[in-house]
Amino acid sequence: MLTLETVKNNFVSHLNKISAYEEALGLIFWDLRTGAPKKAIEQRSEVIGILSSEVFNLSTSDQMAEYIKELTAHKSELDELTVKMLEECRKDFDRNRKIPEDEFKQYVILKSKAESIWEEAREKSDFALFEPYLTELVATTRRFVEYWGYEENPYNTLLDMFEPGVTVDVLDQVFGRVREAIVPLVKGIEASTVKPDTAFIYKHFPKESQKEFSIHVLKELGYDFEAGRLDETVHPFATGLNTGDVRITTRYDEDDFRGAIFGTIHECGHALYEQNIDPALTGTPLSGGTSMGIHESQSLFMENFVGRHPEFWRRHLPTLQKYSPEQFSDVSVDDFLQGINESKPSLIRVDADELTYTLHIMIRYEIEKGLFNGDCEVSELPEVWNRKYEEYLGIVPSNDAEGILQDVHWSGGSFGYFPSYALGYMYAAQFKQAMLKDIPEFDHHIASGDITPIKNWMTEKVHRFGKTKKPLEILQQATGEGLNAEYLIQYLEEKYSKLYNLSAVK
Amino acid sequence: MLTLETVKNNFVSHLNKISAYEEALGLIFWDLRTGAPKKAIEQRSEVIGILSSEVFNLSTSDQMAEYIKELTAHKSELDELTVKMLEECRKDFDRNRKIPEDEFKQYVILKSKAESIWEEAREKSDFALFEPYLTELVATTRRFVEYWGYEENPYNTLLDMFEPGVTVDVLDQVFGRVREAIVPLVKGIEASTVKPDTAFIYKHFPKESQKEFSIHVLKELGYDFEAGRLDETVHPFATGLNTGDVRITTRYDEDDFRGAIFGTIHECGHALYEQNIDPALTGTPLSGGTSMGIHESQSLFMENFVGRHPEFWRRHLPTLQKYSPEQFSDVSVDDFLQGINESKPSLIRVDADELTYTLHIMIRYEIEKGLFNGDCEVSELPEVWNRKYEEYLGIVPSNDAEGILQDVHWSGGSFGYFPSYALGYMYAAQFKQAMLKDIPEFDHHIASGDITPIKNWMTEKVHRFGKTKKPLEILQQATGEGLNAEYLIQYLEEKYSKLYNLSAVK
Repeated sequence: MLTLETVKNNFVSHLNKISAYEEALGLIFWDLRTGAPKKAIEQRSEVIGILSSEVFNLSTSDQMAEYIKELTAHKSELDELTVKMLEECRKDFDRNRKIPEDEFKQYVILKSKAESIWEEAREKSDFALFEPYLTELVATTRRFVEYWGYEENPYNTLLDMFEPGVTVDVLDQVFGRVREAIVPLVKGIEASTVKPDTAFIYKHFPKESQKEFSIHVLKELGYDFEAGRLDETVHPFATGLNTGDVRITTRYDEDDFRGAIFGTIHECGHALYEQNIDPALTGTPLSGGTSMGIHESQSLFMENFVGRHPEFWRRHLPTLQKYSPEQFSDVSVDDFLQGINESKPSLIRVDADELTYTLHIMIRYEIEKGLFNGDCEVSELPEVWNRKYEEYLGIVPSNDAEGILQDVHWSGGSFGYFPSYALGYMYAAQFKQAMLKDIPEFDHHIASGDITPIKNWMTEKVHRFGKTKKPLEILQQATGEGLNAEYLIQYLEEKYSKLYNLSAVK
Repeated sequence: MLTLETVKNNFVSHLNKISAYEEALGLIFWDLRTGAPKKAIEQRSEVIGILSSEVFNLSTSDQMAEYIKELTAHKSELDELTVKMLEECRKDFDRNRKIPEDEFKQYVILKSKAESIWEEAREKSDFALFEPYLTELVATTRRFVEYWGYEENPYNTLLDMFEPGVTVDVLDQVFGRVREAIVPLVKGIEASTVKPDTAFIYKHFPKESQKEFSIHVLKELGYDFEAGRLDETVHPFATGLNTGDVRITTRYDEDDFRGAIFGTIHECGHALYEQNIDPALTGTPLSGGTSMGIHESQSLFMENFVGRHPEFWRRHLPTLQKYSPEQFSDVSVDDFLQGINESKPSLIRVDADELTYTLHIMIRYEIEKGLFNGDCEVSELPEVWNRKYEEYLGIVPSNDAEGILQDVHWSGGSFGYFPSYALGYMYAAQFKQAMLKDIPEFDHHIASGDITPIKNWMTEKVHRFGKTKKPLEILQQATGEGLNAEYLIQYLEEKYSKLYNLSAVK
């Protein structure tokens, strides 16, 4: 008979092993995206398959079942951290074991086919090609939800995977409020006589100089280059291999510097989160961001509340002028802010501005909710999509590629993911509001270039906990209240009323 | 009861898993050396530990014992490839299982301590610090040899680990012949009135230009950049993650271009070997170089027989002149060849020239042999070392750092490794001789810049086999004879007699 202490230690070793395989996989993925040679891929995919299966097996093995059973029986005698690990493993275990093995295998094959068909369909701008796969993906996911169980609404179970605790009721309420506020703002901007001059944005800015400026900014924002590195990829990302190794990537467009600069600042927000998780959690399933939404709150906070702050550019525009003198020498700080904050309805989510972005998310949310409640069929999607774009944004896609087929998410079976982007934005505004009470001299710190107090606040209230706290728990403890969309609305109204001289609208 | 076919398939899956973990480890090591952030290391070391233990466990598990037993019982019914895999696994298994587990653990700890003490000792140039650890390492290794067993000479068992089939008798004979030939050459060169002008070597050559030239040369030599990449490290190396991903690294010294250029060509030889192993061996323990010596034959062939060939520089010096015009514009091809082939006795093995290099290896061979035969004690080593340097090279180290402490090998428990360097050189000369019979227009191919026929010959005779043939089997089949030092001797005598006008010596 093993003592509880021994069982616990074996359990932790088991988790350390899973974590080690995941770290190796993380490095493999990073390498594949940053510069692995083309011919590496065939065999590297085998390696990924073998390591991923091992992670899955270790997470769902009879050994794991045994740990869960024995430790759950002695839960009251366990320390808090072990209880959290146990809960995390149990959730994963239940999710994975509730699906019959052959159905899960079918699902993995379906996803892999759907992803490549989606690519083809988008290229040909032909939703009909993708439709049968999407229909099957929705049906399978719907069946899985039955296995997993749900409360009130089947879609809630999917939301819970990405944002534990967030339900359809919550989202309907906050999205309703945001829509009421944003739609008039968008209309007001359309009618405004203010037309920002954006010509400076599209002037040539050499890649090497963009890179140097990005590194300069990253250092000032507190990104630790001894615990990370900056590389170049087609699709920018941040990846935390361990808290001492959180890498970010960016993309340089020599004819539009915004992607690299704001993209880097955005990824920096993700990276600061992972670099500042309590090192005591390393090697456990708790060493990571607690949810997609909280992760996105960190990147959006950094991008919008720091990186688009007027004081930030009052400080950094002179540096930018040094890196690309011809481009920026005649641009004043006000012109610069007006230009980079231009808002206009557009069709592609990833290119949307700060104001209209949430509308793109809402459209996807409403469609997903409809699909999983039976209010909407896959075959109707292009029509539904276009109608909603017309309604919320006043524009209509001219084809499926710039409409219903633009995002990869659904082809990979990710339903319930999109709302996290908008939630992240609301969380960020709410954190900012709470932070201002503790740090009234927020603007001054941005102006000074030393944002350490701001970063430390986030570490204290968010980063360090990793997954030991649920997203809404973090929000409640950091801000003293539950999810509240008003802070985001207030921020957007103030910002855009000022930029577009909309006092009449308010 | 499982069918033989099923057992075989399970065995292969087991080997695929080992190979996958090794590939992941290979990428981790590459990453650590090429640019992983400093703070990554602590947790990455845990990952390395976990994956390495898994490889060890899979290679020595009861499951492996079962595979070996069952397949060996049906050996005559197996295909050739499975038999080779079985032999490879059995050898590993026996080696590892014959050491009592606690002794092996002690040994791992000892090695890790010895390595860090060696570093300190070399820094302080104080052999006394390292002596107790080296004594213990030799004693432990000697004990392991007893467990493993040996024929005639305990040192043979160690040699066999790196160069299967090569024994003390063989080495005594070939090294004896090489020494007889080289020592008079070295003396002749010392007395020669020819004094190469090497001033051009030490002129400033910008790193970026060295890199561009290196890439240019790599492409011409047939290195496939779709199956590899070139990076920068303190200690250059080549690493084959899979045959579609063989990476090389180099080091740039702006005040001495030789390290980067010849180092890159050397690593290119290693890489061509691994890029051209039969892809059918991928995922098995047979997909790798067959021995240290054969590997080194490929790098030395490329470095010395191609990269120092007069036609090579008749072709490439004009390109070099474009990359660094001031440095090379006044240098003729003959001056260039004379300069880069300068030979003079030196103390540090890794900086030695082509002629004296083998003497450095012989000294180490004789010392190792003495240590494992009981003819020599660890405490005597500095004295023995210095005496041999005086005898063979006519120079004496002024301290332990540039003498007995210069190489890392012994601190890691690698005894029997050094001879492979010299064997590789002999193999290379022997391959060259055999190749000339099939490709009499060898020089012409080098001059033309298209060495495809040369590369194809090596792939046909050496590369493709991976570990399916033993080193001496490859040598025999490619050259029609066993190890023969005469080709290397002949090459060195011709080359250096000509360079230093030594006709009188012969």
